[in-house]
Amino acid sequence: MTPALALFYAGMVRRKNVLATLMHSMAAIPVLSLKWCLFGYSLAFGPTKFGLIGGLDFIGLRGLASDVHGTVPTLAFVAFQMMFAVITPALISGAFAERMKFTSYLVFVLLWSTFVYDPVAHWVWADGGWLFKMGALDFAGGTVVHLSAGVSALACAIVVGKRYGYPHRKPMPHNLTMTLTGAGLLWFGWFGFNAGSALSSGALAALAFVTTQLGAAGGAVSWVLVESLHRGKPTALGVASGLVAGLVAITPAAGFVAPWAAILIGLAAGGICYAAVLQKDRLGYDDSLDAFGIHGVGGLAGALLTGVFAQKSLNEAGNDGALFGNVHVLTTQLIGCGVTMVYAFALTFGILKLIDAVMGLRVSENDEREGLDVTLHGEEGYVLSGGSTAAEELMAPAEASAPSVSTAIASPRTT
Amino acid sequence: MTPALALFYAGMVRRKNVLATLMHSMAAIPVLSLKWCLFGYSLAFGPTKFGLIGGLDFIGLRGLASDVHGTVPTLAFVAFQMMFAVITPALISGAFAERMKFTSYLVFVLLWSTFVYDPVAHWVWADGGWLFKMGALDFAGGTVVHLSAGVSALACAIVVGKRYGYPHRKPMPHNLTMTLTGAGLLWFGWFGFNAGSALSSGALAALAFVTTQLGAAGGAVSWVLVESLHRGKPTALGVASGLVAGLVAITPAAGFVAPWAAILIGLAAGGICYAAVLQKDRLGYDDSLDAFGIHGVGGLAGALLTGVFAQKSLNEAGNDGALFGNVHVLTTQLIGCGVTMVYAFALTFGILKLIDAVMGLRVSENDEREGLDVTLHGEEGYVLSGGSTAAEELMAPAEASAPSVSTAIASPRTT
Amino acid sequence: MTPALALFYAGMVRRKNVLATLMHSMAAIPVLSLKWCLFGYSLAFGPTKFGLIGGLDFIGLRGLASDVHGTVPTLAFVAFQMMFAVITPALISGAFAERMKFTSYLVFVLLWSTFVYDPVAHWVWADGGWLFKMGALDFAGGTVVHLSAGVSALACAIVVGKRYGYPHRKPMPHNLTMTLTGAGLLWFGWFGFNAGSALSSGALAALAFVTTQLGAAGGAVSWVLVESLHRGKPTALGVASGLVAGLVAITPAAGFVAPWAAILIGLAAGGICYAAVLQKDRLGYDDSLDAFGIHGVGGLAGALLTGVFAQKSLNEAGNDGALFGNVHVLTTQLIGCGVTMVYAFALTFGILKLIDAVMGLRVSENDEREGLDVTLHGEEGYVLSGGSTAAEELMAPAEASAPSVSTAIASPRTT
Repeated sequence: MTPALALFYAGMVRRKNVLATLMHSMAAIPVLSLKWCLFGYSLAFGPTKFGLIGGLDFIGLRGLASDVHGTVPTLAFVAFQMMFAVITPALISGAFAERMKFTSYLVFVLLWSTFVYDPVAHWVWADGGWLFKMGALDFAGGTVVHLSAGVSALACAIVVGKRYGYPHRKPMPHNLTMTLTGAGLLWFGWFGFNAGSALSSGALAALAFVTTQLGAAGGAVSWVLVESLHRGKPTALGVASGLVAGLVAITPAAGFVAPWAAILIGLAAGGICYAAVLQKDRLGYDDSLDAFGIHGVGGLAGALLTGVFAQKSLNEAGNDGALFGNVHVLTTQLIGCGVTMVYAFALTFGILKLIDAVMGLRVSENDEREGLDVTLHGEEGYVLSGGSTAAEELMAPAEASAPSVSTAIASPRTT
Repeated sequence: MTPALALFYAGMVRRKNVLATLMHSMAAIPVLSLKWCLFGYSLAFGPTKFGLIGGLDFIGLRGLASDVHGTVPTLAFVAFQMMFAVITPALISGAFAERMKFTSYLVFVLLWSTFVYDPVAHWVWADGGWLFKMGALDFAGGTVVHLSAGVSALACAIVVGKRYGYPHRKPMPHNLTMTLTGAGLLWFGWFGFNAGSALSSGALAALAFVTTQLGAAGGAVSWVLVESLHRGKPTALGVASGLVAGLVAITPAAGFVAPWAAILIGLAAGGICYAAVLQKDRLGYDDSLDAFGIHGVGGLAGALLTGVFAQKSLNEAGNDGALFGNVHVLTTQLIGCGVTMVYAFALTFGILKLIDAVMGLRVSENDEREGLDVTLHGEEGYVLSGGSTAAEELMAPAEASAPSVSTAIASPRTT
Repeated sequence: MTPALALFYAGMVRRKNVLATLMHSMAAIPVLSLKWCLFGYSLAFGPTKFGLIGGLDFIGLRGLASDVHGTVPTLAFVAFQMMFAVITPALISGAFAERMKFTSYLVFVLLWSTFVYDPVAHWVWADGGWLFKMGALDFAGGTVVHLSAGVSALACAIVVGKRYGYPHRKPMPHNLTMTLTGAGLLWFGWFGFNAGSALSSGALAALAFVTTQLGAAGGAVSWVLVESLHRGKPTALGVASGLVAGLVAITPAAGFVAPWAAILIGLAAGGICYAAVLQKDRLGYDDSLDAFGIHGVGGLAGALLTGVFAQKSLNEAGNDGALFGNVHVLTTQLIGCGVTMVYAFALTFGILKLIDAVMGLRVSENDEREGLDVTLHGEEGYVLSGGSTAAEELMAPAEASAPSVSTAIASPRTT
């Protein structure tokens, strides 16, 4: 999922920032995997302290090698949950693409993962978590993953500030084929997240598989319909955005709702997220790749609609939603979302202000104009000239014409 | 599979049509997934009406949530079959790439899926289907998927007509790395289709896995050998085409034949499909991405060779083929293929004529020359200039030099 | 895995060789799959002859259709092992990228696979193999796959010789986004290799899954740290290289060591492989894509560290390593590595000399400068001009400006 996210996001930035954007996701994997096994899993799923946080009992995965979680080995559960723990902070990176310092980014994801992700995952998913005990429903990460990341993305867009020249010069996606490739791979992986959240193969996993597909389908269809009416043309970026919006919204509901409800949730999410993304211009923040507009708004919509459409007859571990007479389930969802939003926003705001004070958040304006690939990483995404014929190679390699680039880029891997 | 097909096809078109080609596959997924769950599954797998079509008993997946299909939950079977139902119409799109209207395309896949795919799937795969009862063998979609799509692709190429300038100006694939990426992902996913068609893990799935690999291998080897003899060089496009041809041909046979037979089927398919693709120039139709030459001809070859090489000792649900004394099995395959070809061709022809009369099939010649990405979707696949240095960005962004493009393209996602 | 390797490698070469590099991996799949089923599996896993090689009992997979290997169908084991047998020779191709003849390459992988891979796999993994009987530990291919391929890659770099102009003109990777995509897909597939090597789902597979992730994470972190200290910037290529180095090193250990040991092995591998890659310039060979530096050195490090950190309590089939009192386990690993290195290097050297004498190894200098895509395969990877507007298309298609290219490239698929 996280390499797929890398492609999804990186296709939407300008060519000069493609590697830096890929790095947001790719570098998050090793850093957050280590953190997860060292202490993150323990904070999220260790024996609860007052329903607020897991303890440090499982630090370094201590004593889990031969444990069993339900019907699966605990280490399999650790690995499964690790994938969520890794991708969630990476989702946020869409908000500050094309301007964030790389080292500050790494510090940010470590702190955010520790102080936002782990507690929220504990509240909602751990045995003694307070939202879990209240009966909050989140099958595969609507609140824990998408809402928390999306709201934090909004805080990031506000604190980090707009890209140079935005919104007068609106950056164009440099490679929508990459974004669509990423969307396709995300869609594929999402079945692992949602059907996998049944934690066993069987009817529940099959239900979650089907609702996931229908949520995505509904999201894509309604986004593209609204877009066609509003803008005149159905876009490829619209299909990709809409299917992700639908996937986000169906995530908390996947194992709790019927297929027909999944279609409705997807349809709602596509339209709502399209509208949310439109507000960006009006409100004036630069959420570069719409992490808030899609994950925040789609996650909220999905969490609340789960409280409407859930059916206990489909999943004993769930509950009947408002539509089936239990308005209090919807209220619980509202409380879960509200608290998560306030908590995630506030903590993210604080973490960013702290990092800004200590080491700065943004690259210099000059580096931003030059592009992060060259200035942060000393590389270029594509070297397309100088490759097709010997003649071209001998004459005028384009990469040598811009002095700042040629001096910044050393040889590959070494020297 | 369908996002992989998107890449496979999109790499073969010109740059100006890359997104429109990706959209053929990507947009088919949501539209056909919804259709499948709303009524397609019921038409294909509902209780039979005279062996010709399923009824409407399972409309909206009614009553299937706790059902079981063999040893798997019915919803898992629904989801598995959905993947075939989604990709089959998308396969056809290779025939009319670079010139079809997007809205007409969506109407086409909906009608085709309803009036061609669902009945043929019912005939061959449903319990009471007439070809199923006759003993037609189609393990994972040789007739249902590839032959029906391939023959329909031929009808499309004929009715929709040639691309502007074809064949005098033969369009070059704009990105063969994308095509090879798609081929690799298709190959990976094909194991899911073929081994998955055993509907349980075990010896039969393992057999289908091995024969699938050997079919693909045989197809690639023979295509490239024939190509090297005929054209002088083994091409990357040849490897990709040959492996797909082999996969297509082994698909109906995968769980019915021995590994050695799989090699022969693959070898035959590579050479036959290469020869079929050559006929295109002679016969004068413009099957842009060879959907007929590979899926139609490869599907036919595979279905017939299944009737030759099948062995009942490998799969009780199968039969012995002509080589093992049962010529009537080959006759049944011939009947199945013949009826499917006539039916699919005729229905496709009719559907296209209807759509042409109501809303038109092709974009204007001007739009075709301009490229479908800009004219249909208001986007460009790649914006590769203006990204690497600030200087370039300030001076002369290439995307602004073509006025028609810059006015057609609005900002991403919004406005 | 092998298509992922294709992308990983192809992104690192120059544009003019992208298809030829993709072909190294893509063409290896069909050729080596056929070979594996015809006689390779039998040589590797057939009843042993003196612990040195399997016999020909299973030629053509004879008699395996209804066999069982442990708890899985033998054909599933054949298919699983086929994936290792296919990718290992393809790994070597990184050493001679951008200059090898395609036909000579195919002959090379066939001979190498037969005379190096099959015997080494037999020694280490087959029931009666001499290293297996000695107790050598190789969970998922550290010695069999990575060390044997890496050492052979060094022999290739030496025998085939440097690329034209190297090292004065150091070729730049033409598409690092492709390399990162490949790295992401390799990472994903590696779980199949390592966790799959448990040959059943359960605690051992879960352990191997977690250690695989931690090995990769450790490798990426330490590579990038060392690189940042040494070169000043963390690169995307560094993240990709480091994670692969970590994956290579954890491969032999995955099912034998604890998670904390996996982190240490990964951290060690990242730094060691970074240092190894640096030696290339000093020693003067041109291992183009660092197949030796990463697979050879990483494989050796992993095999030895397995002999240090292995714990019998985690896996009854393993043993306690040096750290837990069994120095002889480390000695066994040393013997296994030493013999494999000498054997693989010597055989590879001999095979290459033989091929060179019979048919030549390298393309002409002129073809090398022109690029292998056009000269060997008659294709170009990207045709990016002439696609976006009709005006551009009519005016000056760039691909027509280089006469040698336009004459070499025929139409796609046919003519």
